[in-house]
Amino acid sequence: MRKIVLFIATSIDGFIAGKNGDTDWLYTDGDFGYKEFYDSIDTTIMGYNTYYFIKQFKQFPYPDKKNYVFSRSNRKPDGNPIEIIFSDVVEFTRELRSRKGRNIWLVGGSQINSMLINAGLIDEMIISIHPVALGQGIKLFKEDDLRNFQFKLVKHQVFERGLVQLTYDNI
Amino acid sequence: MRKIVLFIATSIDGFIAGKNGDTDWLYTDGDFGYKEFYDSIDTTIMGYNTYYFIKQFKQFPYPDKKNYVFSRSNRKPDGNPIEIIFSDVVEFTRELRSRKGRNIWLVGGSQINSMLINAGLIDEMIISIHPVALGQGIKLFKEDDLRNFQFKLVKHQVFERGLVQLTYDNI
Repeated sequence: MRKIVLFIATSIDGFIAGKNGDTDWLYTDGDFGYKEFYDSIDTTIMGYNTYYFIKQFKQFPYPDKKNYVFSRSNRKPDGNPIEIIFSDVVEFTRELRSRKGRNIWLVGGSQINSMLINAGLIDEMIISIHPVALGQGIKLFKEDDLRNFQFKLVKHQVFERGLVQLTYDNI
Repeated sequence: MRKIVLFIATSIDGFIAGKNGDTDWLYTDGDFGYKEFYDSIDTTIMGYNTYYFIKQFKQFPYPDKKNYVFSRSNRKPDGNPIEIIFSDVVEFTRELRSRKGRNIWLVGGSQINSMLINAGLIDEMIISIHPVALGQGIKLFKEDDLRNFQFKLVKHQVFERGLVQLTYDNI
């Protein structure tokens, strides 16, 4: 079965973005396994807040993928190759996973991450820990309701810049 | 010069303890570098909240070290080999570091960690990432006022149980 993979960068203290959603602390001077991962997926899923941040990039970064953005409010088409999903995040994602295809990239953010980990729908996490402490910001998972989840470390990779990439399987 | 070392365990999502200070998610079935580290220090420093948690252990775990506990309120002696410090955390710690001796273990918690990182007084961090997601709890650093800090990854070690230990130097 295809897997749902949370591929995401964090600070040493577990933030995926700064207080105002800023990600200027992320290293961008290397590939850090991105291309290989990107080639392994054919679909992305993300929450609207995350999409709203990505929208501000000069170019939409996943033009050749099928992109689903979850939202509770009606959103007008904006020219990007995305589909807004109003239906239940968990049910939609479970159905999506049951279809044939390559892996699905869970882009984030913390709210969707929490809903999907709670539903047992994160099969793998690839966390790239940047050697930065932020102190505050947007966390990997939203605070409410998360049960403690055990993972199995299946791979680790250390990049020259001090970036550590850990791959965990759901158990 | 002796170093101040933050040696601490975190979850994948950056918490040092659960919502109620609980640490029952920590792996205790291995040494994970503890003895070697413990032998490299002769002093511990910690905040009172952290000490309050440690106090509940059957035995005080650092009996052969010089232990300083920072507090803003008067505390009665409780039989443990600790000294309560009422003076300024940063000044006291800076003075302590300037004295001769082995390294100093910054035990935590988040408030003291933040004060000392902001003052440039964390020389090294040894973070043991347990393969668990908690969602909520006590963070590595307290939210307020932390500037973004860059670190240099100088060592990494992966233990069989999936615990990853990352050593960072202040830069």
